[in-house]
Amino acid sequence: MTLLTEKRTLLTVITEAAIEKNLLRDLKQLGVAGYTVLDARGKGRRGVRDAAWGEAANIQIEVICSRALAETVLLDFQARYYDNYAMVSFLQDVEIIRPDKF
Amino acid sequence: MTLLTEKRTLLTVITEAAIEKNLLRDLKQLGVAGYTVLDARGKGRRGVRDAAWGEAANIQIEVICSRALAETVLLDFQARYYDNYAMVSFLQDVEIIRPDKF
Amino acid sequence: MTLLTEKRTLLTVITEAAIEKNLLRDLKQLGVAGYTVLDARGKGRRGVRDAAWGEAANIQIEVICSRALAETVLLDFQARYYDNYAMVSFLQDVEIIRPDKF
Repeated sequence: MTLLTEKRTLLTVITEAAIEKNLLRDLKQLGVAGYTVLDARGKGRRGVRDAAWGEAANIQIEVICSRALAETVLLDFQARYYDNYAMVSFLQDVEIIRPDKF
Repeated sequence: MTLLTEKRTLLTVITEAAIEKNLLRDLKQLGVAGYTVLDARGKGRRGVRDAAWGEAANIQIEVICSRALAETVLLDFQARYYDNYAMVSFLQDVEIIRPDKF
Repeated sequence: MTLLTEKRTLLTVITEAAIEKNLLRDLKQLGVAGYTVLDARGKGRRGVRDAAWGEAANIQIEVICSRALAETVLLDFQARYYDNYAMVSFLQDVEIIRPDKF
């Protein structure tokens, strides 16, 4: 027996905990139906304004949606936050069941 | 030099923290050799019984195993929990080394 | 409109919280530019020295970098830690924007 799955896109955004509320508001406005937030910590290059290294309270936000919506969110976040906040985003293909949930 | 890797399946299950013990018991009974649990929070559509939105204490469970076992777990969880609990699951291909560990 | 993305490798390492400092030092020495750490808990087979099962405070470390660097880190960690610590690692392809960040 082979499971019937459908493809969706997993968007993962790792960024500063300080802007969590802003990001969740943006997700809702962009039409995202659900999200998961995990507390994290990390280190990496900052945006343009601050080239120094910082270790900080981070969050990891995960969204599963269509490829098109994931790209919309990514472009929106890039325009709003990439220059001023430490933010790393990436896309992955995932397989889901129960596509009515996404 | 190219690393020799083998393919396995990463099963990720995001659901309500309240049923963690049940899920870990199920995993053991289904033959899963190891798992990781991360605390999370999130928002999304609930199951059939509750179509409203809720923000709740969630967990993210990760299991790496064969594709067949991942599908078995996914079908089992779907049958047991999808109607009554907020649960999102997805499958991804991953590459591992040391296949004896999985 | 299609988003222009580039491929990178996501390396995920799940291991004992006790060796976090060692691993972060190793990452820096190996040339990794950034990382994320999430607190986790889990269960699984231990390394060679301890075949028993244990449930323990774990961490999940995530690194996005080139395939070559991810393999270097994986081989280094395997040589240093796999025999004596509970450690599970896996590689995945991800798509990113802003490749200058990685």
